[in-house]
Amino acid sequence: MSKYSIILGNLGNTCDRFLSSGYKEELPKETLIEQASQISAVKGVELVGTWDVSMENVDKIGETLSKYGLECSSIIPDHFSQKRWGKGSLSAKDPDIRKQALDYTFECIDMARKLNCPTLNIWPGQDGYDYILQSHLVNERNYLKENLTTLAKSAPDIRFSLEYKPKEPRNFSFMARASDTLLMAKEIGLPNVGVTIDTGHALVAGENIAESVVILQQYGKKLFHMHFNDNYGAWDDDMIVGAVHFPMYVETLFWLKETGYDGWLSMDQYPYREDGQGALRESVEFLQMIEERMSDEVMDQIRELVTAGDAVKSQRWLRQTFFK
Amino acid sequence: MSKYSIILGNLGNTCDRFLSSGYKEELPKETLIEQASQISAVKGVELVGTWDVSMENVDKIGETLSKYGLECSSIIPDHFSQKRWGKGSLSAKDPDIRKQALDYTFECIDMARKLNCPTLNIWPGQDGYDYILQSHLVNERNYLKENLTTLAKSAPDIRFSLEYKPKEPRNFSFMARASDTLLMAKEIGLPNVGVTIDTGHALVAGENIAESVVILQQYGKKLFHMHFNDNYGAWDDDMIVGAVHFPMYVETLFWLKETGYDGWLSMDQYPYREDGQGALRESVEFLQMIEERMSDEVMDQIRELVTAGDAVKSQRWLRQTFFK
Amino acid sequence: MSKYSIILGNLGNTCDRFLSSGYKEELPKETLIEQASQISAVKGVELVGTWDVSMENVDKIGETLSKYGLECSSIIPDHFSQKRWGKGSLSAKDPDIRKQALDYTFECIDMARKLNCPTLNIWPGQDGYDYILQSHLVNERNYLKENLTTLAKSAPDIRFSLEYKPKEPRNFSFMARASDTLLMAKEIGLPNVGVTIDTGHALVAGENIAESVVILQQYGKKLFHMHFNDNYGAWDDDMIVGAVHFPMYVETLFWLKETGYDGWLSMDQYPYREDGQGALRESVEFLQMIEERMSDEVMDQIRELVTAGDAVKSQRWLRQTFFK
Amino acid sequence: MSKYSIILGNLGNTCDRFLSSGYKEELPKETLIEQASQISAVKGVELVGTWDVSMENVDKIGETLSKYGLECSSIIPDHFSQKRWGKGSLSAKDPDIRKQALDYTFECIDMARKLNCPTLNIWPGQDGYDYILQSHLVNERNYLKENLTTLAKSAPDIRFSLEYKPKEPRNFSFMARASDTLLMAKEIGLPNVGVTIDTGHALVAGENIAESVVILQQYGKKLFHMHFNDNYGAWDDDMIVGAVHFPMYVETLFWLKETGYDGWLSMDQYPYREDGQGALRESVEFLQMIEERMSDEVMDQIRELVTAGDAVKSQRWLRQTFFK
Repeated sequence: MSKYSIILGNLGNTCDRFLSSGYKEELPKETLIEQASQISAVKGVELVGTWDVSMENVDKIGETLSKYGLECSSIIPDHFSQKRWGKGSLSAKDPDIRKQALDYTFECIDMARKLNCPTLNIWPGQDGYDYILQSHLVNERNYLKENLTTLAKSAPDIRFSLEYKPKEPRNFSFMARASDTLLMAKEIGLPNVGVTIDTGHALVAGENIAESVVILQQYGKKLFHMHFNDNYGAWDDDMIVGAVHFPMYVETLFWLKETGYDGWLSMDQYPYREDGQGALRESVEFLQMIEERMSDEVMDQIRELVTAGDAVKSQRWLRQTFFK
Repeated sequence: MSKYSIILGNLGNTCDRFLSSGYKEELPKETLIEQASQISAVKGVELVGTWDVSMENVDKIGETLSKYGLECSSIIPDHFSQKRWGKGSLSAKDPDIRKQALDYTFECIDMARKLNCPTLNIWPGQDGYDYILQSHLVNERNYLKENLTTLAKSAPDIRFSLEYKPKEPRNFSFMARASDTLLMAKEIGLPNVGVTIDTGHALVAGENIAESVVILQQYGKKLFHMHFNDNYGAWDDDMIVGAVHFPMYVETLFWLKETGYDGWLSMDQYPYREDGQGALRESVEFLQMIEERMSDEVMDQIRELVTAGDAVKSQRWLRQTFFK
Repeated sequence: MSKYSIILGNLGNTCDRFLSSGYKEELPKETLIEQASQISAVKGVELVGTWDVSMENVDKIGETLSKYGLECSSIIPDHFSQKRWGKGSLSAKDPDIRKQALDYTFECIDMARKLNCPTLNIWPGQDGYDYILQSHLVNERNYLKENLTTLAKSAPDIRFSLEYKPKEPRNFSFMARASDTLLMAKEIGLPNVGVTIDTGHALVAGENIAESVVILQQYGKKLFHMHFNDNYGAWDDDMIVGAVHFPMYVETLFWLKETGYDGWLSMDQYPYREDGQGALRESVEFLQMIEERMSDEVMDQIRELVTAGDAVKSQRWLRQTFFK
Repeated sequence: MSKYSIILGNLGNTCDRFLSSGYKEELPKETLIEQASQISAVKGVELVGTWDVSMENVDKIGETLSKYGLECSSIIPDHFSQKRWGKGSLSAKDPDIRKQALDYTFECIDMARKLNCPTLNIWPGQDGYDYILQSHLVNERNYLKENLTTLAKSAPDIRFSLEYKPKEPRNFSFMARASDTLLMAKEIGLPNVGVTIDTGHALVAGENIAESVVILQQYGKKLFHMHFNDNYGAWDDDMIVGAVHFPMYVETLFWLKETGYDGWLSMDQYPYREDGQGALRESVEFLQMIEERMSDEVMDQIRELVTAGDAVKSQRWLRQTFFK
């Protein structure tokens, strides 16, 4: 069975542009951590900068994680929730903002070391543009690449896993799709730079998630991290796994295993109006239900199915294998 | 259990704009009908005008259906596969084409009577437009409404079930969504005019299928017919049921039952490269698998779930009820 | 030329789920009103409940509007930005919340009377659902209809213009599309209930805006209000008019004029990172640029084009009429 | 001004899956070539294998092109319109089919040489998959890469420009997006392998076309060819340029010029129901209208706009520069 993890903030309050105070109440960090530890199989938590972790509270957070027997599976530097990053962070037009973004990310490296956390999950949500003729596409993409290179060179002990998303909060992100982001990782050319797939982001990008797994793994084992959730296909609805789709999760877990992915399966949702712990637990249990069937025999069956390519057989097999 | 049906042409050869001769070989009509009869639970077939049935062969087709113990669940008049309908049929700008479309549909009424078929499934695929400033939106929508009124008035013994689809072959269809089409049915104001939901068309329209069922049933029991298939959400891929989505089929079957729908569940797919019979059988068996669980007790459970509205509970219930 | 209006909050600070404090600074209400008055051609402002107007400040707001020579073109009751509406307002499962939503909307009616504002623009953003098997689709849609009926019956002097949107903040809204919402308005059956088209919402719904105008006007002059913005098609990006599309605005303005719409053209944008006044002014000037060409002669030309339906001619005409 | 080209078949008959005989009449090849030559500025035509050119007629076609003063701007090998390619060509599971696809493409290389055509535009439309668990994603992507490598190595005098498209005729294509395809080109690692952008395919992929231009040019001048058309964003509607969008064409032409693209601007449309010549001419004239404004001064203005990133200014500039 894979290692399971969750993003801590998913257990807390979440807001949107219409209800900025959020749909639920704020809970103390320790309560969130305790809740995470209560989800069977969850051994790690991801911490978001500013929201969860900062230079001020990092030691305290580390102690609390230990108390509840949890690892820090990744830190997600906050490149998105501060006004100063509103028009970009590592790729901002303003050199002073880029400098600030770099300095802030160096701090996150320090936090990661303090927490024995091997991975920074880099999601530069504000780095992109909204309008036609708003971005100097050559320069700004270069700023991003250069700053990521500087960071990764300076910290060979830390893995930088670049998380792509086609849009939101910008209408166009610079790291938008699996292959765009892999290209950037390959241009950077360092072994500690790879890519995160968020299943919902991949769906919005129109990707078949399993194929993105294969592309990233085939071109140099560059899949570093996985975020799981579900959505209706057009937007990052960040729902419980299995709420909309089914067969694609089977195919994704197959190819993760087949290509030797041994990282975390981390839940990344926005349970705006739901019980956070319940929503995350249900996602974990849905994925475990699939994983539990993935015996050597079943792996062989899938290998045969994808080699034969008979859709009728594959659909029947899915029904007979997973449904009552 | 519901009555199951298939569209006959789904068993035959299918083409697209790149491979106009089709991906498979043509088979004789009787072979297709025999194949339909071999799918357990299938008791009806839908016949497409021109492709399957015409004034010339209707008696022969009727005999063959009888021979294999099948009813004609609907006739779908051919308003889409002839050059003369290329710019519209019942709503065409050219009054002569509109007249021809009307005359042709009267023929289909005759065919339906000959086959004891209660329903014309009207899908005027060419009635719409492609470009901005190409359609006189008031006049052409009126032509469609008037011609449908004429037809329905003339044949009170036949049900006219209007099938909507947002686009394809036109970029915009005049009958595009459940509610647009219900509005037209209500303007026509005759008891024998209702609406067909094709699950794939509803997905492309961004509808939650169950809600479209409810809207059509609440506003006067206007859901006359159901076509089933699956797709990835952006296009009418016409795939095997369950190939992409799962929970939505449960919700759809629940609301069909809850709102007293007693019509056919008819399969409408385009198994371009698949074994047609296998693809249709798998869809039928997938839906039956869900229907088999829909005991009185389970119906009560769903009533409770939708009344409570706790998404975590609903997702857990789905997993525990349907998956091994 | 049409009457132009803006939504006041568009000039202020706007946030999203990642940057909840917003991308800009808060400005005093009077500054926003003054800025609105400085946009040439703008004679009205729409006020959002809670954000802009409440029983406490309504008189003061009225005075400020007068001071700057502006009308209140509509009040948009706040059915979306309060925690208590998080799971629905007028259609909430909880009867106490529905009662509160009704009471609050009665207050908005009072505010409208105080401001001589003829229209409540009803956008019940939280009324819908996110998950399959989360909504009792029959009951909740009925709650919404009944409460709207109660409101509209009680205030025949006020127009209730129902604004549809397919999704956000819920994954499915009960008032999702032009025709869904018109059906609800027709079920309510009162002359003071109609529909608002937001051009961006219509795009997300896959509608051709001009056709939605025609449907609403043909079925009983039910188009009460217009919100303008632009987006990339998949999400309500709330951008400057003309930022993405062009010909559709020409067609929309043509059919608004042709079907006798004489209401406001109101700007509804989210200029997260832009100068709000500049963004709104640019939208107004873009629409005016088109309106200025809409002479009687040009109206005749368009009538000919839509009657002929030759896409090549229509495209050529658009290019030669509007571009240098 | 750029070099303009068209795809020959766009002038002829086009069909879809409902009207397989096509919406128009077949015309003799020479008529199509003559029509192409009559569109001012068009100096090249692209020929599709099987449909337009084969070993049998290549000499005759070459003579006819000469007679009308046209170059062959590319040959598009037919990897999509023959039954044998129905489940894939260069990546087919069946080794015999792969061999046939390779042999056929070698023939296309010969045709290209006979026509002094420098480019094969490779669009392997059938290479992909429809269903989950239908493709051996590792092996089949490798077959494609290896066969492309074999071809490109064998013909260093010919450029192989890989045209991506997210879907259709398969639900998922192996060459789906700009970056996927660039990755494949880079893995192949030969100077004569690059990428074609079709503007409509890029829109369906959710790309900002200009950014795809920049990515391909920045990572090694790999943009080899451009196809132009327009669509509504969700499907490859293959419409007249400018029929839906406007500003994005300005940005695209700016970055093509700025990054030193000196290839063809080739029109690729499906004017199903339109006059083909008229539709192509209008697209060419629309693009020329933009190009004509692209003086050195205007290029400087755009450089300033994209460096400043003020969306209000950019929108105003677009309006004032291009509209009357």
